[in-house]
Amino acid sequence: MGSLDSNPASFDAFAADAEGFQPLNADDVRSYLHKSVDFIYDYYKSVESLPVLPGVEPGYLSRLLQSAPPSAAAPFDIAMKEIRDAVVPGMTHWASPNFFAFFPATNSAAAIAGELIASAMNTVGFTWQANPAATEMEVLALDWLAQLLRLPESFMMNRTTAGARGTGGGVILGTTSEAMLVTLVAARDAALHRMGSNGVAGITRLTVYAADQTHSTFFKACRLAGFDPANIRSIPTSADTNYGLDPTRLLEVMQADVDAGLVPTYICATVGTTSSNAVDPVGAVADAAAPFGAWVHVDAAYAGSACICPEFRHHLDGVERVDSISMSPHKWLMTCLDCTCLWVRDAHLLTDSLETNPEYLKNDVTDSGAVTDLKDMQVGVGRRFRGLKLWMVMRTYGATKLQEHIRIDVAMAKMFEECVRADDRFEVVVPRNFALVCFRIKPHDGMIEEAANRELMERLNRTGKAYLAHTVIGGKFVLRFAVGSSLQEERHVRSAWDLIRKKTTEIMSGEM
Amino acid sequence: MGSLDSNPASFDAFAADAEGFQPLNADDVRSYLHKSVDFIYDYYKSVESLPVLPGVEPGYLSRLLQSAPPSAAAPFDIAMKEIRDAVVPGMTHWASPNFFAFFPATNSAAAIAGELIASAMNTVGFTWQANPAATEMEVLALDWLAQLLRLPESFMMNRTTAGARGTGGGVILGTTSEAMLVTLVAARDAALHRMGSNGVAGITRLTVYAADQTHSTFFKACRLAGFDPANIRSIPTSADTNYGLDPTRLLEVMQADVDAGLVPTYICATVGTTSSNAVDPVGAVADAAAPFGAWVHVDAAYAGSACICPEFRHHLDGVERVDSISMSPHKWLMTCLDCTCLWVRDAHLLTDSLETNPEYLKNDVTDSGAVTDLKDMQVGVGRRFRGLKLWMVMRTYGATKLQEHIRIDVAMAKMFEECVRADDRFEVVVPRNFALVCFRIKPHDGMIEEAANRELMERLNRTGKAYLAHTVIGGKFVLRFAVGSSLQEERHVRSAWDLIRKKTTEIMSGEM
Repeated sequence: MGSLDSNPASFDAFAADAEGFQPLNADDVRSYLHKSVDFIYDYYKSVESLPVLPGVEPGYLSRLLQSAPPSAAAPFDIAMKEIRDAVVPGMTHWASPNFFAFFPATNSAAAIAGELIASAMNTVGFTWQANPAATEMEVLALDWLAQLLRLPESFMMNRTTAGARGTGGGVILGTTSEAMLVTLVAARDAALHRMGSNGVAGITRLTVYAADQTHSTFFKACRLAGFDPANIRSIPTSADTNYGLDPTRLLEVMQADVDAGLVPTYICATVGTTSSNAVDPVGAVADAAAPFGAWVHVDAAYAGSACICPEFRHHLDGVERVDSISMSPHKWLMTCLDCTCLWVRDAHLLTDSLETNPEYLKNDVTDSGAVTDLKDMQVGVGRRFRGLKLWMVMRTYGATKLQEHIRIDVAMAKMFEECVRADDRFEVVVPRNFALVCFRIKPHDGMIEEAANRELMERLNRTGKAYLAHTVIGGKFVLRFAVGSSLQEERHVRSAWDLIRKKTTEIMSGEM
Repeated sequence: MGSLDSNPASFDAFAADAEGFQPLNADDVRSYLHKSVDFIYDYYKSVESLPVLPGVEPGYLSRLLQSAPPSAAAPFDIAMKEIRDAVVPGMTHWASPNFFAFFPATNSAAAIAGELIASAMNTVGFTWQANPAATEMEVLALDWLAQLLRLPESFMMNRTTAGARGTGGGVILGTTSEAMLVTLVAARDAALHRMGSNGVAGITRLTVYAADQTHSTFFKACRLAGFDPANIRSIPTSADTNYGLDPTRLLEVMQADVDAGLVPTYICATVGTTSSNAVDPVGAVADAAAPFGAWVHVDAAYAGSACICPEFRHHLDGVERVDSISMSPHKWLMTCLDCTCLWVRDAHLLTDSLETNPEYLKNDVTDSGAVTDLKDMQVGVGRRFRGLKLWMVMRTYGATKLQEHIRIDVAMAKMFEECVRADDRFEVVVPRNFALVCFRIKPHDGMIEEAANRELMERLNRTGKAYLAHTVIGGKFVLRFAVGSSLQEERHVRSAWDLIRKKTTEIMSGEM
């Protein structure tokens, strides 16, 4: 673009200054990106040695960077220098191989490349017509992943056997919360319709259900969708079911609600809870829900990725009887944020609630019904080229490497678990299902174990050499050791364990 | 990571195969990214010559790519080849300088670089502790942009004059729809609380308002939040106000609702509608809302970017009296998707509705109240390093270049508008406010102008040399010519105009 005088009278007014501001000049793009790639290379080479959790105070960044936006342009190197000097030292390094907190945000070279290309193409695929390739790539990536997960064909957009379009459908969203929200809304509207509710008048009678171990974002999503807080049931779990949802209990609670004139509408079953990787029994939950016609959603955000391995697939048994399932390749399938896959068995239930049809998006292909516009399966309208990076991950690594990646993480977690079990100062609090180990220092003569475990976590995290988070399970304060950060190797797990033992010895010898 | 045997008995079991699968190996990352950068360079150099709108049929991609996920790994070059051969030919090229449809998705070298670095760091900043740098960078970027927009300090997280934290706050979301949804929910809950509603029992009395030109996603967001469809008021507009909301009419409708026992809860005012860039009068809308205590949100998704220029800032006059405002740098501020900025005057109203506090995210800094965890201002929990690219755009280009970018686009649109006005076969249908020109072939002897304009659009789009969308304004079928795609220069606008004239001559001479 040429820079302009204030009153351009004709086309020729620009031509004189055709070398003006060009924000997407290909040479600049190449130059900036090469510098960014060099930075990333150095970052990955050095991140192991950086403190995982930074020692900065709230407000640190505004003391390092200018508080007002600059008026003048600056060389790109200035921004890069400030990233090195001010941003990196204040980061919690999720990419560090010494990161064991929360769940790892796994990543890969292919995913980053895919996201980069998507950012440069910068298309907005709200309708098929607005970007056929982006829409179809997203459908293809979802169908591929559905095949890796051995999801029933009823969830797929393109049925492989019949070669025809099914009633199922999928969409890539930003977070599990969005997957919950859009399916909650679809289930809500379907229930209101079945009740013959006048508008949303019946909403106060709708009830939703999940185990008390379910991610708190589910309860938030229910409130976003307008469900009455008093009708959101958090069903207690216990060690008897390893903190998984007890379907008998679920059935009782639903029946009691029906007896009270309420309408069971939606159940969220989790495969691999965030707290402890508990698994709700998918098939039994579906069976419990069936008499009530309630929507069953499976949240497999983290552990869904493991189900690409045959030895873990049984956790999804019964999925052919649920209404929807979501999982997040940005958690454990080496796909950088954000990427949450949602599949539904009847895409029309989603689009009935989420469809919009403004004049400026109308087009012949949409009118023909031959395509699904992905805007009608999500909260908003605009959307990135979301399928590309996920497809590139599967295309480049193939099922074999993806399974290997899962198995390596699980094996490292198993090894860590065995170490914990072999040291009688510790206990593994719940059975390990995937690559998360929940453990703690055992109760010990006169020692308050919560204080000891909290102290252990804080001392570990302060070293900068490991970062662990905690949870509370069955009233116990527990440390979560989540294996799988993408630069992690066996030596990092070993070092963390050595550090845990050392700090525990310090604590138990009274150095508190 | 080393590959593993199936039963690793000890740490040493891995060591033998330490050269196993390393998805984030720095050398691979560098190699894949360099190849991607080369692809992007070639793409930008050639995109001008590609058909803007591809000539593919639904299902084309699944005929070119394999329908099942590969079992084995493949060299990265295979994925790149398939992108070149199968993806690019099916794309609607938003990056093309011949793209004039919808609104342009503007972009820049600095933004792409920022997103790349964020993808590689791949952090999840749900809480301040989970990434202090990402949280503070987002706050800083929002405060910088608020300053460029001359938003009142009451919207900023860090007040510049007092140097203290204010009650305002901001967050970067994916789309305007999310900004509408979270503020709708906050307004809904605040209204229910004021009414003393038992749970959501009062929800059927809550009403929301917007002009009939408001983006359809607003009406969808209202339904997502559980508002009764019968209580969603779409207020008719007309040419008298250039299709902006008439505050007198708004006041009348709200008063009638109050008289009927309803509770005006939320009003969405748009600065720059998608259809025709109409502007609702922000201050007058705020004044109309005040007696009712209704929440006023300003959606400036597209035109908000122009308000960094003093000559456009008046469109936001009165913003100091509204409750929230959102705008999307991914539309017109050279920041690749997705990036929607939301500011609210009282952040607590948002967090009251959106806060979650699971055990595994508890930490001392959050407990201290010294920070706002950004998860409590959005739908979900997980979030990318969203502030980085926006900050890099402002850091690199500065206010001067950002304003120049807006002015160049507006000047090109103005020039196009003058061309249309100079040709008496055409008319400009509504006054041009920003860089969108709404025009059509005028009614003419015996010609059905909708058919003629539709034919013109279809013929233009079929050439592959330009892509325009349409809308309907005041019952008229109108062509939208949106200037500003980031590779666009004056010559592209001229070529499109030449093509429009040529096709119009063909149509008017009866070659239909």
